Amino acid sequence: MSIPKKHFKKGTPKPDIPEDGVLRYYTMRFCPFSQRAHLMLAAKKIAHHTVYIDLSEKPEWYTDYSPLGKVPAIQLPHLPGKPTLVESLVIAEYLDEEYPGERSFFPKDPLQKAQDRILIERLSPAVSAIYPVFFTTDPPADALKNFEVALDVFEEEIKKRGTPYFGGDKIGIVDYMIWPWFERFPALKYTLAEPYELDSKRFAKLLSWRQLMEQDEAVKATALDAKVHAKFMRTRHEGKTNYDLAFEPL
Amino acid sequence: MSIPKKHFKKGTPKPDIPEDGVLRYYTMRFCPFSQRAHLMLAAKKIAHHTVYIDLSEKPEWYTDYSPLGKVPAIQLPHLPGKPTLVESLVIAEYLDEEYPGERSFFPKDPLQKAQDRILIERLSPAVSAIYPVFFTTDPPADALKNFEVALDVFEEEIKKRGTPYFGGDKIGIVDYMIWPWFERFPALKYTLAEPYELDSKRFAKLLSWRQLMEQDEAVKATALDAKVHAKFMRTRHEGKTNYDLAFEPL
Repeated sequence: MSIPKKHFKKGTPKPDIPEDGVLRYYTMRFCPFSQRAHLMLAAKKIAHHTVYIDLSEKPEWYTDYSPLGKVPAIQLPHLPGKPTLVESLVIAEYLDEEYPGERSFFPKDPLQKAQDRILIERLSPAVSAIYPVFFTTDPPADALKNFEVALDVFEEEIKKRGTPYFGGDKIGIVDYMIWPWFERFPALKYTLAEPYELDSKRFAKLLSWRQLMEQDEAVKATALDAKVHAKFMRTRHEGKTNYDLAFEPL
Repeated sequence: MSIPKKHFKKGTPKPDIPEDGVLRYYTMRFCPFSQRAHLMLAAKKIAHHTVYIDLSEKPEWYTDYSPLGKVPAIQLPHLPGKPTLVESLVIAEYLDEEYPGERSFFPKDPLQKAQDRILIERLSPAVSAIYPVFFTTDPPADALKNFEVALDVFEEEIKKRGTPYFGGDKIGIVDYMIWPWFERFPALKYTLAEPYELDSKRFAKLLSWRQLMEQDEAVKATALDAKVHAKFMRTRHEGKTNYDLAFEPL
């Protein structure tokens, strides 16, 4: 019994998930918020079943797991009532606390934890600025400029921290929680008429950090190639969103 | 030396805050997110100086404390670098961890903590639905209906928990984090042509909870009368937002 590797759509019956008490991870393969949860599952080596959800045409049964239909969700079938959790940061912290693994990723110090959470939120303006560039064919003229101004915060911060990762000498929660978007930015080398890449001077530290991050096992385990992201973006430009191309050969 | 009780505007110099190491709380008196921080300060009896910020015309110096100009912010002048924290939930958790007070409000159990955080997020659809009713003169026709559907989640949840508070027999973090909006809903008795109140059958448990909450010392310490909220909403309807009327006699 295995769960088909495809995004479940409206009208498709619930997959047969083995009743083996193993954690269930509900995701859309291109969703950066879902990848946050995936990174934690991979980094902590937590066994899980994966169920892919088509976000354009959600299967009717999905609200049983995620009342608002959002991904990611994780279900904990080994616990009473088989509870489901949503919200990527809530899931990340829960997994970090309940599955110690080799180490934990959230800082223990309340001040550092608060500051890391605030830093994670600071990516929002960069994400808001870049999304129209990713997914529409006519983004606002100043989108890339606003994106870079928002990213300056991260270049400054990693400079200030003076360590290879935001988490210090090792990857921490900030690194994993912002990573999914950094995996996607290089798609702009392929989707834009004028290929775009972060400026190597202005974002020197951030680009070194990106290279380091690419070597991480959890990052590798959850990665999609920039060309696949670009291909997905093009399906959205054309109004033919195709989630399953994540599983097709490039 | 005391800080004037008024909302600081663009062009006004920084107030002279005593250099006594006491925590500084930056707020707008009508802001529900700020009230979350205020409730924690009050419940934990944490000494603090209050600085009110005019959100329509923010003082230039405010971005020194809150880089995106948002309230609430707290500054911790007793710590190296005098760090500032933003984001109401981040502030709430930091205060809960660093200032034990008589008791803590976040659950210790990771699952319960995750579920409480998710429940707090579930208020967003109710807030999104009701805001146009609060602050515009021409809200969408289905706004109140959508608001009630979103609140059903809370009525169901408190029924399911079977306790007077979301936190159990005592107030917990969900109670305080959702409270500010419940303080404001009764303003609709005064602002709408057809006075609005939650249905006493459909929201029976939630209304009992509201009555209990009104007795809490921290809730009382941070409260504004529904008529004052209504008056504030009317200044916004008229395009003459007046934050300082929080300090005027009714």
